[in-house]
Amino acid sequence: MICSSPLALAPAPSTWRPAPRAESGSGRGTRTLTIRPKYGDQACNVEVHYLCCGAPGAPTVIVQGGISATRNVVAQDGDAVPGWWQSLVGDGRAVDLERYRVLSIDWVTPQELGASSVSSEDQADLLAALLLELGIGRAHCFVGSSYGAMVGLALAARHALAVDRLVLLAGAHRAHPLATAQRAIQRDIVRLGRACGRVDEALGLARQLAMTTYRGSEEFARRFGGAPVYHDDRFHFPVEDYLQHQGRQFVERFDPERFLALSESIDLHDVAPERVTATATLVGFSSDRLVPLADMCELQRRLCGPATLTVIDSPYGHDGFLKETEQLAPLLREAVA
Amino acid sequence: MICSSPLALAPAPSTWRPAPRAESGSGRGTRTLTIRPKYGDQACNVEVHYLCCGAPGAPTVIVQGGISATRNVVAQDGDAVPGWWQSLVGDGRAVDLERYRVLSIDWVTPQELGASSVSSEDQADLLAALLLELGIGRAHCFVGSSYGAMVGLALAARHALAVDRLVLLAGAHRAHPLATAQRAIQRDIVRLGRACGRVDEALGLARQLAMTTYRGSEEFARRFGGAPVYHDDRFHFPVEDYLQHQGRQFVERFDPERFLALSESIDLHDVAPERVTATATLVGFSSDRLVPLADMCELQRRLCGPATLTVIDSPYGHDGFLKETEQLAPLLREAVA
Repeated sequence: MICSSPLALAPAPSTWRPAPRAESGSGRGTRTLTIRPKYGDQACNVEVHYLCCGAPGAPTVIVQGGISATRNVVAQDGDAVPGWWQSLVGDGRAVDLERYRVLSIDWVTPQELGASSVSSEDQADLLAALLLELGIGRAHCFVGSSYGAMVGLALAARHALAVDRLVLLAGAHRAHPLATAQRAIQRDIVRLGRACGRVDEALGLARQLAMTTYRGSEEFARRFGGAPVYHDDRFHFPVEDYLQHQGRQFVERFDPERFLALSESIDLHDVAPERVTATATLVGFSSDRLVPLADMCELQRRLCGPATLTVIDSPYGHDGFLKETEQLAPLLREAVA
Repeated sequence: MICSSPLALAPAPSTWRPAPRAESGSGRGTRTLTIRPKYGDQACNVEVHYLCCGAPGAPTVIVQGGISATRNVVAQDGDAVPGWWQSLVGDGRAVDLERYRVLSIDWVTPQELGASSVSSEDQADLLAALLLELGIGRAHCFVGSSYGAMVGLALAARHALAVDRLVLLAGAHRAHPLATAQRAIQRDIVRLGRACGRVDEALGLARQLAMTTYRGSEEFARRFGGAPVYHDDRFHFPVEDYLQHQGRQFVERFDPERFLALSESIDLHDVAPERVTATATLVGFSSDRLVPLADMCELQRRLCGPATLTVIDSPYGHDGFLKETEQLAPLLREAVA
């Protein structure tokens, strides 16, 4: 439930341009908001870091990604790197910044909430409070992928007036128990490493395991069929180089405690689809083993408002929402409009 | 590639009886055999522990299971526990001990070979040598599941005269790169634990990860959909209890170094199907994510001798060879006959 390879998503440097400067008062910002966290004893004040950009005064589209995604959906003036959904959000793109305003937050953690755990409902409550705080009140659309889709559902279920329509990619009303098993093991790896004073190594290993759940089986077969190489006293298989690289990259940008909390938050997520009345466009990926199509189908069936499910044929598994730009663009454009 | 729950396979105590005493000279035994290991410098003598039982002088059926299986395919007089394939091997069963003699070995490790790694070819060479040593010469049939299927292919490719026909369940000519990725991570977990002095805990965790690859996705959904429980300072999900139990059981009966070597042996396995001329009956399981049907199909297509592939519809994933007794029995009976 993580942007596994944001750099791979960046358009070639020659075609990528930062989004134009947004209206004054927008861009990146921080607001202190008050919510009562699900797993805390009392109301608390939380600093929420957001990005707001696009056409001033235009309808607002909230965009949220997986647990390792940030508010940086699109790059701003002066940013050295593109945003994690740069290919789908921007001037003239599927989520058109000449027609919409895009809002996104950094996920909060239990530490920031003074709570033992953080729920998708907490993230949703913060988004609802932020909409009020920024004077937006009601979002035109919520486009959520992976954990972002879960938070979108929680927002629509708890704050029906906060959002008109939902676009939910590769995320459902609850986690699949096999995916929960895989994440529970990732968390135990991190705990083992933490107990041994080798938490970075363990976090890298947990990320490696996560990568095996994000990408499609056929993609692994196509890319990593080569012979092993013997060095440093053992055989190394081609897929190990790839996984270790992914693990190292993740450790550089992610904190173990943040990982434990947000990974757990996915598994704690449980929203009754019957409570959601917003119009919903669901998007699943054929090779997604983490969020199986059966769960997306159940969600579509149980939602209270009008809901459609589109299945995108993709070899990229759960990471389809980061990789299938061409198939997603027209779908997203229509769903948001 | 492991018998994940041998005890679950045991028939009810009221119906289970030990196999009748076999002819003199059979039963469990040990022979010192000489092979030249693939990853060693020189020929070496290895003690091989075998089981030989069933009808004296009858055609021999070699039966080998996954990396955690032993020679104890069926229980012998005085055994306290049933064998790991008790439901399919025995008097009047699919592999009928009144008509056949069954032979099986305990897998050898690199330590026993004086080698850096152990290959499926090494195991096959030892089986070929054992057939000669016991005066059997040529086996009527080799029934291999998971890693056992890999060793069966290696035997047929290297010693065409040693075996007439193959029955290969949930195993192919090479490991799938996604499965290799999952096993490489399991091995890295064990190495991390070993480096920290917590190897048992790590081995248990590796086994938990393996379990998520053995069983079908729908089975997880059906069994572990319940709500989490908060204790010992964190939420625990129902699937975690199951996985931890499986991990603990494995640690009690398995050695970390043995695990590392046999797990690696699966990933090193690479036999050209074109070299195999024996008649082959292949059996795949619809929900097996570790050995996908596509790989069983490729094996069937590339084998040089007559080969059929039967797909068993099962929710049990890779563990179908341990769980689908009723569907396997007629298939096995016919393939062996």
